[in-house]
Amino acid sequence: MTKKNTIDLEMMRHSFSHVMAAAVLKLWPDVKFAIGPAIDNGFYYDFDFGDKKIGEDDLVKIEKEMEKIIKADLKFERSEIKIDEALAKEKKSGQVYKEELILDLVKEGEKNVSYYKLGDFEDLCRGPHVALSGELPVGSFKLTKIAGAYWRGDEKNKMLTRIYGVAFATKKELEDYLQMLEEAEKRDHRKLGKELDLFCFSELVGPGLPLYTPKGMAIIDELKKHIEQVCRNYGFEKVMTPHFAKIDLYETSGHAKKFGDELFHVYSDKGHKFVMKPVQCPHQTQIYASKIRSYRDLPIRYMESERQYRAEKSGEVGGLSRVYAITVEDGHTFCRPDQVKDEIIGMVNIIKDFYSALGLWGNHWVSLSVRDYDHPEKYIGESADWDLCEKMLQEVSDEMGLKAKRCEGEAALYGPKLDFMFRDAIGKEIQIPTVQVDFATPKKFNLHYTDKDGVEKSPVMVHRAILGSYERFLALLIEHFAGAFPVWLSPVQVKLIAVSEKHNDFVQKLADEFKKENIRVELDISDETVGNKIRKAVAEKVPYMLVIGDKEASSDKLVVRDRGSKDTREINKEEFFIEIKDKIVKKE
Amino acid sequence: MTKKNTIDLEMMRHSFSHVMAAAVLKLWPDVKFAIGPAIDNGFYYDFDFGDKKIGEDDLVKIEKEMEKIIKADLKFERSEIKIDEALAKEKKSGQVYKEELILDLVKEGEKNVSYYKLGDFEDLCRGPHVALSGELPVGSFKLTKIAGAYWRGDEKNKMLTRIYGVAFATKKELEDYLQMLEEAEKRDHRKLGKELDLFCFSELVGPGLPLYTPKGMAIIDELKKHIEQVCRNYGFEKVMTPHFAKIDLYETSGHAKKFGDELFHVYSDKGHKFVMKPVQCPHQTQIYASKIRSYRDLPIRYMESERQYRAEKSGEVGGLSRVYAITVEDGHTFCRPDQVKDEIIGMVNIIKDFYSALGLWGNHWVSLSVRDYDHPEKYIGESADWDLCEKMLQEVSDEMGLKAKRCEGEAALYGPKLDFMFRDAIGKEIQIPTVQVDFATPKKFNLHYTDKDGVEKSPVMVHRAILGSYERFLALLIEHFAGAFPVWLSPVQVKLIAVSEKHNDFVQKLADEFKKENIRVELDISDETVGNKIRKAVAEKVPYMLVIGDKEASSDKLVVRDRGSKDTREINKEEFFIEIKDKIVKKE
Repeated sequence: MTKKNTIDLEMMRHSFSHVMAAAVLKLWPDVKFAIGPAIDNGFYYDFDFGDKKIGEDDLVKIEKEMEKIIKADLKFERSEIKIDEALAKEKKSGQVYKEELILDLVKEGEKNVSYYKLGDFEDLCRGPHVALSGELPVGSFKLTKIAGAYWRGDEKNKMLTRIYGVAFATKKELEDYLQMLEEAEKRDHRKLGKELDLFCFSELVGPGLPLYTPKGMAIIDELKKHIEQVCRNYGFEKVMTPHFAKIDLYETSGHAKKFGDELFHVYSDKGHKFVMKPVQCPHQTQIYASKIRSYRDLPIRYMESERQYRAEKSGEVGGLSRVYAITVEDGHTFCRPDQVKDEIIGMVNIIKDFYSALGLWGNHWVSLSVRDYDHPEKYIGESADWDLCEKMLQEVSDEMGLKAKRCEGEAALYGPKLDFMFRDAIGKEIQIPTVQVDFATPKKFNLHYTDKDGVEKSPVMVHRAILGSYERFLALLIEHFAGAFPVWLSPVQVKLIAVSEKHNDFVQKLADEFKKENIRVELDISDETVGNKIRKAVAEKVPYMLVIGDKEASSDKLVVRDRGSKDTREINKEEFFIEIKDKIVKKE
Repeated sequence: MTKKNTIDLEMMRHSFSHVMAAAVLKLWPDVKFAIGPAIDNGFYYDFDFGDKKIGEDDLVKIEKEMEKIIKADLKFERSEIKIDEALAKEKKSGQVYKEELILDLVKEGEKNVSYYKLGDFEDLCRGPHVALSGELPVGSFKLTKIAGAYWRGDEKNKMLTRIYGVAFATKKELEDYLQMLEEAEKRDHRKLGKELDLFCFSELVGPGLPLYTPKGMAIIDELKKHIEQVCRNYGFEKVMTPHFAKIDLYETSGHAKKFGDELFHVYSDKGHKFVMKPVQCPHQTQIYASKIRSYRDLPIRYMESERQYRAEKSGEVGGLSRVYAITVEDGHTFCRPDQVKDEIIGMVNIIKDFYSALGLWGNHWVSLSVRDYDHPEKYIGESADWDLCEKMLQEVSDEMGLKAKRCEGEAALYGPKLDFMFRDAIGKEIQIPTVQVDFATPKKFNLHYTDKDGVEKSPVMVHRAILGSYERFLALLIEHFAGAFPVWLSPVQVKLIAVSEKHNDFVQKLADEFKKENIRVELDISDETVGNKIRKAVAEKVPYMLVIGDKEASSDKLVVRDRGSKDTREINKEEFFIEIKDKIVKKE
């Protein structure tokens, strides 16, 4: 089978799910079928096995049965029957889930339904499918896991058994994907975060609320320092706003309605009532609004790294990717319409500078997310403003060589945007940075500036995200670097290991020298064996390790072991300081 | 009258309150009397004037009447009568408040009460008073304001009229105090904060929730950078903990009970329940608890600048001194008992370093706040631990020459402490820095380390505050410097003023050069006259002002006007950069 496009892949994956269902029917004739769609990278099917328990061992059996069905080159036969007949048929065979699905279709006024038959397995299905099971590539699928899933996702319903599979156009692609999964598991930020002691959780504090240790905080602080410097170069100034506000603020901005039950509410026994901020933008409008502004004062650029709060479902929080509080690096420009383009250019340059330092710029694509022109009613603001902004974004893309892909219907509610998509070291897509033009918010908050002609006008607000939230970005960095951070981000840049107790003093003194140079150093003067100490330092992925025994303690030179190397090298102390500080400054 | 000690001053102030009451009785014979105590710097009396309205103008009249009474040299005559007689007497004269006070005394089992008579005014009073009104120094008192005050402070009761006065031993002291008040009013951080555009409030966000503008944030960031560097020099490492937690955390620490209705509660429609953190300490214990600790790992020192929340009464919030969220710079050491003394020394050194940079070290005194030895039941922890700690603090005081004054009964619930008291530029006392030894908290949270002998032991926690909260510290700095911050803290270090539009480009370019040197610069290229621009810059108390016209734009040298000076000086650009950067580094 040659490389196909997305739709063909989806049809293939959906066909695989029918093949799996047919195989399951063969092995467990009493099984009841729920639904079985194609999903990203594969497919699943939800089964009701009654009292029978299905384990991971059974997956191999099912796979073998599937291979037989594929080799048998069976036809996917489509038929269309009256909906009443379909209902009677499912009722008769006791397929209660299908019966329920058909009843829904009856309510929707459907007259006929289609079925797809594959051997003995016939399934209520809209299709489409491949013509013959033999078209499916035998070696390019794999059943990956079994999970519980409530019928229709409702916990009041019965828990069904969901079997997941992955499927690709070629065996090579499947292998690459499985290898990526394995690599991703090794790099899982929850696992590495614990091993590298970057953050922790506490039963008493509660899940979804990470606590950052000194090592995790060192990374966050470096990121913060870096992004603030980059943004300051483009005229952004830091502000700080409270973590909660009267609900009036979010009712004015529209966020109260938008976030609904995702809002955290605050009260006291003294009668206070507030809402935890779900976003930063409305707060920053209030700093703009605190003074009279003239056309000469614009653009005004605010940035802020503060936590914002979303009441995620308690069952869904975990690691740093889903938390109750995310520390968002947020920024907004308030400017005149004639300044919007320059602002966009500045923000794109910030994104470029920041992601270049992480080695991610270049391996990316840009979406120019514009309106759905068929449904202008979905957006707020004037059509002329939209036209102007989309044109501006297109010009920026052309002039800066961004080659942005026009994605219709992907704009924000209040304006078009540029979205940047990167790929991490194992190929996972990262969609964080964005530049969004917003005519609506300043009007909602009644923001003004006095123009050259003396007339009061509304400024335009340009939103930008660079690294998004520190929580998700740290998770991403851990996984991207597999914990082996570049020197400037490493929580411990140099590890000093004393061979025995008599070297402890020397190691202490040397550590102080590194500290004076603002190099993050950690010493291991524990009672463990040198071998253990070295193994620990290797596991910690420290960029430089220095093992100090008699020879080293009496030499002018340092003996350095670089990360990933088993060899050591000799270097003059001053030279080593310069080498490290140079890497920190250059962010290598 | 010569200088007296505190108790005599209090007696004198209390006598002034009787003189004022006697004067009021003369002017408004129908007045009813509530209470009239001595307070800090003066006295007050609460009156019920019935339907009559008393205004600021009346204060002069009352003062004149008081002077007459003082000049008449009347006797303060004490008498003691049976409580029944007293009750009958007040009932008869319709003094309902006195009647109520006597009824309370009846309940308390008092048999007799004392009265003090001064001319026609006789008052239920425990005394003591001066012997003759003529002993009171005529020129050293002043009535300062009229305010409403509920009878017994309960808003369900009648609102009475409270008249405040200030009184000192000498006229000179009164004048100094009134001048200080006037100066304090000029320096009021709420007034200057607005004028200098350092922070703002928003109706939509709510009172008690300040928003920091770029200028206010510049000061906070400099303070943060400075204090973090000082603390890092003494081994502190930054951590970050969430803003809320399960109530379990604060129930374990005891803060849930301690803060009671001052706690902010958090909930969501999805069923989440949390409490906003009223303090940082319990959170930091959870980072300690996240790993197994050995005696070699200690001391572990955490610091954090995060907001904590207290539900202050909504009527009491205002400015930066009383807010709902304070950004506290907090830090804790977890150490072995044998390390406590060194930790205390380190923390005292941090306080010394930090306050020296602000020019406040030297004008201070230290309290060694120990137990109330008569009431050991008021404290938690072992007596032996307390003895040890108090001894240690005394040793630190002696060895470091702190000359700490032993203040019995001033210890914290969980341990003794060193408190540092400074004085600001106008003499107001600042009580912020503290070092506190705590044996109890680590036990509550079941914290451990494995000692050299393999036994699990409890670490000691040492709490320290350096600048306290950024909110209150910023208020204090604004008032201390009257807005004329030292160069390193100035939000705008250099102001560039263009004489006319044709100099704008030159000014812009020059501003960029300052920015490259990391000097905070602001330019005024508005349409206003040069005179207005200069006046504005002077009002903004910018350290350096450069007015740029034809001559300056064509010269190699800069023409600088220093803050507080009307003259200018010529200086080479590079030299000026060095001068400013030197002041920033040295924090002059």
